[in-house]
Amino acid sequence: MYSLGTSVDAAFLLFSAYLVFVLQAGFAMLTAGSARAQNKLNVMLTTVVDAAVCAIFYYIFGFACAYGRPWNGFVGRGDFTEWLNLANSAQFDEYFNPRRGENHPWNPLANHRVWVFEWATAAAVAAIASGAMAERSQVTAHVACSAFLSGFVYPVICHWVWEPHGWLSVYSQGTRLMGVGMIDIAGSGAIHLTGAIAGFWGAIILGPRRGRFHSNGADDAAQPKESSSQGGRSTLVVMGTLLLWLGWYGINPGSILGIVPKHYVAMDVVVDRAAVTTTLAGAAAAITMLFARRLMRGRWDVEDACSGLLGGLVAVSAGCTVIEPSVAVLLGFLAAWMLIGTKQLAMAVGLDDPVEAVQRHGACGLLGLLFVGLLAKEDHVMQTFGDGYSNQETPCGWLYGIRGRKLLAAQAIGAACVVGWTSVAMAPLFLMLRMAGLLRISEEEEDARLGFSADDNYEHVLGQER
Amino acid sequence: MYSLGTSVDAAFLLFSAYLVFVLQAGFAMLTAGSARAQNKLNVMLTTVVDAAVCAIFYYIFGFACAYGRPWNGFVGRGDFTEWLNLANSAQFDEYFNPRRGENHPWNPLANHRVWVFEWATAAAVAAIASGAMAERSQVTAHVACSAFLSGFVYPVICHWVWEPHGWLSVYSQGTRLMGVGMIDIAGSGAIHLTGAIAGFWGAIILGPRRGRFHSNGADDAAQPKESSSQGGRSTLVVMGTLLLWLGWYGINPGSILGIVPKHYVAMDVVVDRAAVTTTLAGAAAAITMLFARRLMRGRWDVEDACSGLLGGLVAVSAGCTVIEPSVAVLLGFLAAWMLIGTKQLAMAVGLDDPVEAVQRHGACGLLGLLFVGLLAKEDHVMQTFGDGYSNQETPCGWLYGIRGRKLLAAQAIGAACVVGWTSVAMAPLFLMLRMAGLLRISEEEEDARLGFSADDNYEHVLGQER
Amino acid sequence: MYSLGTSVDAAFLLFSAYLVFVLQAGFAMLTAGSARAQNKLNVMLTTVVDAAVCAIFYYIFGFACAYGRPWNGFVGRGDFTEWLNLANSAQFDEYFNPRRGENHPWNPLANHRVWVFEWATAAAVAAIASGAMAERSQVTAHVACSAFLSGFVYPVICHWVWEPHGWLSVYSQGTRLMGVGMIDIAGSGAIHLTGAIAGFWGAIILGPRRGRFHSNGADDAAQPKESSSQGGRSTLVVMGTLLLWLGWYGINPGSILGIVPKHYVAMDVVVDRAAVTTTLAGAAAAITMLFARRLMRGRWDVEDACSGLLGGLVAVSAGCTVIEPSVAVLLGFLAAWMLIGTKQLAMAVGLDDPVEAVQRHGACGLLGLLFVGLLAKEDHVMQTFGDGYSNQETPCGWLYGIRGRKLLAAQAIGAACVVGWTSVAMAPLFLMLRMAGLLRISEEEEDARLGFSADDNYEHVLGQER
Repeated sequence: MYSLGTSVDAAFLLFSAYLVFVLQAGFAMLTAGSARAQNKLNVMLTTVVDAAVCAIFYYIFGFACAYGRPWNGFVGRGDFTEWLNLANSAQFDEYFNPRRGENHPWNPLANHRVWVFEWATAAAVAAIASGAMAERSQVTAHVACSAFLSGFVYPVICHWVWEPHGWLSVYSQGTRLMGVGMIDIAGSGAIHLTGAIAGFWGAIILGPRRGRFHSNGADDAAQPKESSSQGGRSTLVVMGTLLLWLGWYGINPGSILGIVPKHYVAMDVVVDRAAVTTTLAGAAAAITMLFARRLMRGRWDVEDACSGLLGGLVAVSAGCTVIEPSVAVLLGFLAAWMLIGTKQLAMAVGLDDPVEAVQRHGACGLLGLLFVGLLAKEDHVMQTFGDGYSNQETPCGWLYGIRGRKLLAAQAIGAACVVGWTSVAMAPLFLMLRMAGLLRISEEEEDARLGFSADDNYEHVLGQER
Repeated sequence: MYSLGTSVDAAFLLFSAYLVFVLQAGFAMLTAGSARAQNKLNVMLTTVVDAAVCAIFYYIFGFACAYGRPWNGFVGRGDFTEWLNLANSAQFDEYFNPRRGENHPWNPLANHRVWVFEWATAAAVAAIASGAMAERSQVTAHVACSAFLSGFVYPVICHWVWEPHGWLSVYSQGTRLMGVGMIDIAGSGAIHLTGAIAGFWGAIILGPRRGRFHSNGADDAAQPKESSSQGGRSTLVVMGTLLLWLGWYGINPGSILGIVPKHYVAMDVVVDRAAVTTTLAGAAAAITMLFARRLMRGRWDVEDACSGLLGGLVAVSAGCTVIEPSVAVLLGFLAAWMLIGTKQLAMAVGLDDPVEAVQRHGACGLLGLLFVGLLAKEDHVMQTFGDGYSNQETPCGWLYGIRGRKLLAAQAIGAACVVGWTSVAMAPLFLMLRMAGLLRISEEEEDARLGFSADDNYEHVLGQER
Repeated sequence: MYSLGTSVDAAFLLFSAYLVFVLQAGFAMLTAGSARAQNKLNVMLTTVVDAAVCAIFYYIFGFACAYGRPWNGFVGRGDFTEWLNLANSAQFDEYFNPRRGENHPWNPLANHRVWVFEWATAAAVAAIASGAMAERSQVTAHVACSAFLSGFVYPVICHWVWEPHGWLSVYSQGTRLMGVGMIDIAGSGAIHLTGAIAGFWGAIILGPRRGRFHSNGADDAAQPKESSSQGGRSTLVVMGTLLLWLGWYGINPGSILGIVPKHYVAMDVVVDRAAVTTTLAGAAAAITMLFARRLMRGRWDVEDACSGLLGGLVAVSAGCTVIEPSVAVLLGFLAAWMLIGTKQLAMAVGLDDPVEAVQRHGACGLLGLLFVGLLAKEDHVMQTFGDGYSNQETPCGWLYGIRGRKLLAAQAIGAACVVGWTSVAMAPLFLMLRMAGLLRISEEEEDARLGFSADDNYEHVLGQER
């Protein structure tokens, strides 16, 4: 009951969660580096506020939805009274205490350290969505978006994908989708695709930034109009990228949630593999993107390497423990081309997404999900999910055998459901915010932020939004 | 003797210590972001120098004072010869080696990894004090302040509060203060209040920065006179805040000093709780402060969210493992209002403290200490301190029962002693430095730093201080 | 077989590896802070590209060279078919899988988590070399240099120094060099000296930056011509230094590769000691350098403290677990004077190395190697290398006894071999790149980068290099 193994897993998960939190710092720097100079403040503010709002809403609502008492496969729950009484310490303690939890039908995932880890991922989802809406949205809109995402929309997807009773879950102990369940270990779908789709609707409903498409035909969404602090911009982008790379070592290996042997499998081998595939996929994507764009445009661009790197990291998340390192290199290569293609597409359709969240997290997340259906290795799947498949057929990727088509189908269905649910939930929210006049800042303020403001205090004080 | 559990605790404590070290980077960025542009250099220098000076002085003097051979409850000691001979390796090794240490009456805390963790906290104390003195103090003054704080003043408080023979200590194996001892798990009092009081006397004795109060009646201590790199300032403040938030996961859960089961208690549950309460208190304070100031001033201010966040983190440190998560939200709410109030107060009394260290670390630290006396939960106290209370009454907060008044009294006495001792020790130091002309930079230099210097080299070379 | 201890070591090594990765962020900021403003972009780009290129080349070639099947003491290998077939998953899996690896003659170091740790060190070597070549080299040259260093040159040295079959290795199970082997625990020689010598030849063959030595007789290699963002520069230098300091806690204690008891030795004591000596050597060097230069030049300079700190950290790496804490203070003191001396020397011979990589990593690395030969303590050597010396004489430093001369000789021979091999391997590469016109950017581009470019896009797009 008081086992050393639990302590080791706790330490592993907590420190992984702290690394996931580093993603917030990474997104903050990356978005600030991508924003026009005068908007850094807005961008920076939203990062801190996102993380804080997510903590409160994930605490009150989100965690119960994701990993609460099993209910119907769609969402978890506490009893209605329990929901209202979460502030009641005794119940809350029982609810979260893993020791007592073992004796009642609640979820063994419902403990404090999983809460910390999952909150940090929820904050990452909100940060991805915020990035796509940067520079023209009100603080109120960010708060509403973060609260709804972390309190309800993302937890529902977590429940589907990672909860043993979720209908998409590979961990499911009952009937699995297509007999195999959807494999999304570290959230190419649940985290990145969710965040990107939320950001997509936000960006569409906000509309592009003023002067983004018509002034000078710039072909780079992140092009600054003037560069007041030369070199500072790329510093922020690169530092943000390196911090995100670091944070990915929290989210990918950490998503195993433990490192001690389980079901006679040495989980440390699984965790180690996640660290290797993450590194290689990111590196391959960075190099591919850098050289491909060098050939296409005739000049080196630091943002290409950074953008490619992040695309590779997003793509490898779904299958980080079930693909092989050499296959991860291939995945990184494909992710870079996916990014190059969708970058063009986004320009063509006039989507203004300052940090390219939709391309990086959406397109590459989708690629990662489907790639698992093609190249997941049976051995590695068995290692990763332990006895989950003990009395059933272990799935593998389609390219390893015709029976792999079931896994591919499950991945595609899962992806479609993530996209559909996020769209159905988030688009109405943004439309309502727009109707209420709380979505976009005024034209005067947007113009003011683009020029050099005469107000000395402007720099660290946002304008008079409602 | 060569136990796996010890290794796990060692890894946990070391990595927690590394996160505590991240606080240095956080304080550096936060202070640089709060300083006027020309003073970033001074601020940055002092951070590195503080950490280095603290390492040397904490090594030679501090650690022996804090966790040396028990002596009189006021301060630990080595024999006088041992003090002089710390460079003598054999004695030093025996002194620090935990294996041999078990066989003699010295402190089991006296081992290398505790040294690393405690050094990092000592550096944090020095950084807090330095922040309050920023922009107008000499490098020499910072060195003297850091050396004295880390070599003597702070270790004495550590000895009182955390050493099993300290007279305030809840870990005490003899008679405890008020029968219960003072609960200050991660240093709302011992670290933050100490640093803030040291900084308070430094700031008072230095006097305000030139032009701080009389030029334009600015109501924000951190207002820059001109903003040469727009957006850069808020970037630094936010990044500093996020790094501090990260570092707090080292100091709060890490202060348990281990994660493996102890005295039949699963310490990982205690550690996990610390991570949750830390997150929630910080988040609640950030949101409260952001919205409260929005209502009061009619505009959003990113520094409000950051300031509130840090206030909440400071307040929750004392009781991070003994209060409940829902209560931590309440504490965060109170911390934000405490900050708002003391901000006004500091303006009213003309205290010039560029990073608001006194308000954030002092007022919120005091709040955190007293809050434990109100809302510590008996169950959680028992879990946290293991068999410490095995044959005595376990304390609880006053709001949980009338017998909790003893704990509240102990907390208040402890807070008063921390304030008193730090004042008595530090104020004379600053007065002596002022008399020796080593405290404040010259008026010419201060003016030079405020304007744009004509000297190209000025940027990275400090002036001709004595 | 599925042991808890392995899991603990895995978690320890992985998180150490993540901290080593933080070095990349540190080098990026430090180099950007040392570069002239317009060159930050180039510098930032190369950091990301270095890490990515190293991952791919260390995966395909480097790891097999370093820790592959033992062959001849010079370099490891896979069978030729295995090299070509690394993409073949089954072989790759067998190659890397530590569980299966135990049953065949391959190296127990050949597992995934060691790969992650060693890749991160390889990237650090490449970053050191890149720093010395900053501001005037082509992206292509950086890619070639990183690929060759991480794919072959550095792995060969790893094989010599750390592989149980390497001819310099203290871990060697056969005949050791001078009967004792070379002690270089965390790479003062293998990592820092290698990187510095590679950078030295790069800097020499590139030649100095335009205007570096003849324009105004500046005596500081890092002097900017104009300071467009005052204060920003020192912020970057200090933040880079703090991140490097943090990363050093990954590389020094982490180089033990595990923390659980081994051969009846409590390895956590060894790991703890590494953290303490690292802290003290760095701190002592920082303070020595700051005050020494203050006395010599009459002003405080933040870069002195940072430079000294890094020199001390480099010097302590070789012996971090075998010297005593008090001796580490002495080592830090010496490292600072070594830096001061070599700084003058580099000026005298006209070496233009923007980040002083040759002095910091080369001279201090050499100092660290030889210092081990003088002051390694027998007890600590035995603890660190466990049963390695069970049936042989345990070495100690020369100052502890005349028989220590063997260790000193081994350290000197090892250092000479590292310098020789790196020179022989890297100098021809740079010469070939120069002949191919791929080494240095054009004079026009270099001038353009020094002035303010008229091209708004210049800031984040590198020029038209080949």
